[in-house]
Amino acid sequence: MKKIYIALLGFGTVGAGVYRVVTENHALIEHREELDIEVKRILVKNFDSEPNINMAPREVFTTSIDDITNDPDISIVVECMGGVEPARTFILAALNGKKTVVTSNKEVISKHWYMFADTARKNEVGLYIEATVGGGIPLLRTVTDSLQANNIEQVMGIINGTTNFILTKMSEAGQDFGETLREAQELGYAEADPTADVEGFDATYKLSILSSLAFHTHMPIDVIHREGITKLTSEDFHAARQLGYEIKLLAIGKKTENRVEVRVHPTMIPKTHPLASVRESFNAVFIKGNAVDDVMLYGRGAGQMPTASAVMGDVIYACHHEGKHRLGTFRNIPDMDQGTILVRDWQSKYCIRTRVADQPGVLSKIAGVFAKHNVSLNSVLQFAQKEGEKGPIAWITFLTHTAQELAVQAAVEELNTLDCMESVESLIRVEE
Amino acid sequence: MKKIYIALLGFGTVGAGVYRVVTENHALIEHREELDIEVKRILVKNFDSEPNINMAPREVFTTSIDDITNDPDISIVVECMGGVEPARTFILAALNGKKTVVTSNKEVISKHWYMFADTARKNEVGLYIEATVGGGIPLLRTVTDSLQANNIEQVMGIINGTTNFILTKMSEAGQDFGETLREAQELGYAEADPTADVEGFDATYKLSILSSLAFHTHMPIDVIHREGITKLTSEDFHAARQLGYEIKLLAIGKKTENRVEVRVHPTMIPKTHPLASVRESFNAVFIKGNAVDDVMLYGRGAGQMPTASAVMGDVIYACHHEGKHRLGTFRNIPDMDQGTILVRDWQSKYCIRTRVADQPGVLSKIAGVFAKHNVSLNSVLQFAQKEGEKGPIAWITFLTHTAQELAVQAAVEELNTLDCMESVESLIRVEE
Repeated sequence: MKKIYIALLGFGTVGAGVYRVVTENHALIEHREELDIEVKRILVKNFDSEPNINMAPREVFTTSIDDITNDPDISIVVECMGGVEPARTFILAALNGKKTVVTSNKEVISKHWYMFADTARKNEVGLYIEATVGGGIPLLRTVTDSLQANNIEQVMGIINGTTNFILTKMSEAGQDFGETLREAQELGYAEADPTADVEGFDATYKLSILSSLAFHTHMPIDVIHREGITKLTSEDFHAARQLGYEIKLLAIGKKTENRVEVRVHPTMIPKTHPLASVRESFNAVFIKGNAVDDVMLYGRGAGQMPTASAVMGDVIYACHHEGKHRLGTFRNIPDMDQGTILVRDWQSKYCIRTRVADQPGVLSKIAGVFAKHNVSLNSVLQFAQKEGEKGPIAWITFLTHTAQELAVQAAVEELNTLDCMESVESLIRVEE
Repeated sequence: MKKIYIALLGFGTVGAGVYRVVTENHALIEHREELDIEVKRILVKNFDSEPNINMAPREVFTTSIDDITNDPDISIVVECMGGVEPARTFILAALNGKKTVVTSNKEVISKHWYMFADTARKNEVGLYIEATVGGGIPLLRTVTDSLQANNIEQVMGIINGTTNFILTKMSEAGQDFGETLREAQELGYAEADPTADVEGFDATYKLSILSSLAFHTHMPIDVIHREGITKLTSEDFHAARQLGYEIKLLAIGKKTENRVEVRVHPTMIPKTHPLASVRESFNAVFIKGNAVDDVMLYGRGAGQMPTASAVMGDVIYACHHEGKHRLGTFRNIPDMDQGTILVRDWQSKYCIRTRVADQPGVLSKIAGVFAKHNVSLNSVLQFAQKEGEKGPIAWITFLTHTAQELAVQAAVEELNTLDCMESVESLIRVEE
């Protein structure tokens, strides 16, 4: 029986989950995988403020990374602290100490993956990151070990549970964003500072990792168009419902010949689309390959035990690949450089909600602006004036055919200059 | 660049698909995986009746397995002939010729996996079977390489596209089975002899493989309860709809402590269940692990290119694991023997449709029989007599709470002896 000593960096939700899987499923892993895995050390900031300290024997804990990097018994270091520092420094120390690293930290991977992979390669150790995207859903290994014969053309999905929980409530209960966020915070689905989730940063980190792997080209976070959910209103959901759509925060990556577009933004999708029925904090991702066509993976994108499942899947995989680690990183496609990656002018359909003066000729003026910018309209919905609203006001929602992003932006800018235009209330991209 | 020569056994739909992926995605696989893969030989029965013969140079084809097993260049043999013989003989010949085998043939694997795995082990070569279950959906590798730290408690899904196509049409168009089967045959979704699909054999082969891997214990096909879809009527769908359910042919494996139940049968699931919205020939499987909770994988469970994607995923995986093949087979759990596997008396909920004489006291008599067998009723629906039907007849549908299979069987047997009972029209199991 192969004895494997691992160390955990951090003992919060994920770290404690990993400890639980190692101990609760120990016999099962020993029997099936012929691996006797033991957590030898756990790095914490200090013993006294550690909520999970009673889960493991006191002598296992340490506050010094050196106790781990200098321990020749330890072959795998699991980083589950989150954030950039000190995670970045500790991961490098572990790799340089000839330890294979498994991490669930999407932020540090999306920002420093290249450097980590280089360091791992030099030290002939592994770097495994399944838990960084989609929690327990085996997204990354599916790309690298199952769909690897495919030219992957698209990834599209819901990869942030907090925002999906909020959007589900906004859609089903007709609530506004602020009210729903407070509810999500009370229930523990959103952090006290919700910025990383609701502004789309978390989804951007994950999309950077997933699309880099899927398209085999480095997609740093700063090439990803990012738009959060904070500006969505109950009126957006009302309009979407009228048109037969649901609104989700989608992470989208598309490859067409040598161009790649990557974006995170609120998206209208038809109610019949499988992603439309992904509710609450669940995640789901579609991957489209040129041989396999569409595959969808669905499950719990966060949470203690699902994330620990992915981490331990990596640990076991790493054990079986000792001395033969594949770094799970991407190779740049030679004819695809940064110039062709930075595609801001993608094509999409759009839903544009406007608030206009209710007077003759308004629709014709607005339609004229769209036509001028070569944006073709699919349907137009006019809603009656709201109760209590001053003056003769109309609400008009436009659904476009496929158009160029920059043309639509220009059209909206010009719409805002029209005398009859009270305001362009929202612009939401549409995927079918 | 590592040069890999492979051989194909069979050049029908799947074989031709594999050839297409090898040639169309050759540059991509070379660049990303550092593998130059070439199809060196293709075994066919005879040249003249081969519909795809023009896809490859004539000299690649052979009618002799010896040309493949004796060729030292060839390291991987891809079997995609289907059926038991001569596939079984050829797979053994390839393994004994020190070739790694990749196969999409669920029937031969479900019947001879043990022997193949032994032979592969003796010859120190690999045996890869991802394409046998779920077509392009990476189900098996997810179990072995991603969820391997979990105690998998349940697998449940739609793993036969032909029957799901038929059931979708029966549900949506209100058609009867025979009519829908003919339509499926015309469209190429069902074979001229549809027995393997509509009687559930195909799903049974796949469930045997999937549950053996998931539960790490050998689940031969003869321990699987099998029931096809041929007896379903439009009345079953009508009743299901009234109760808020959809009917799907589900493959179900459940593990509770040391007992495993495996069954393939028409199943009522709530319309809100994600499997209820899996339409037409798509497949989807839920896997429940004690850490990851529920994961669902969805995609094309058959078809030329999706199956070829899974086959080529295996070929590339095998190349990276040369000399270190893991046989992808199960280990028997020591405390789980055949006695505890053969669980015929599982628990489920049931929907029982009856046709009875419409006279006083009937419901009380029937309810009495259920009570006697300790089967508790959840709801009862009585439908009016049909037009043109003779005599005072009522249709009563019973939905039970969770009950023992054998108790329900006994209750139905006794119901059939009641004077007031015209017939027990159907018994369909219910999962929530």
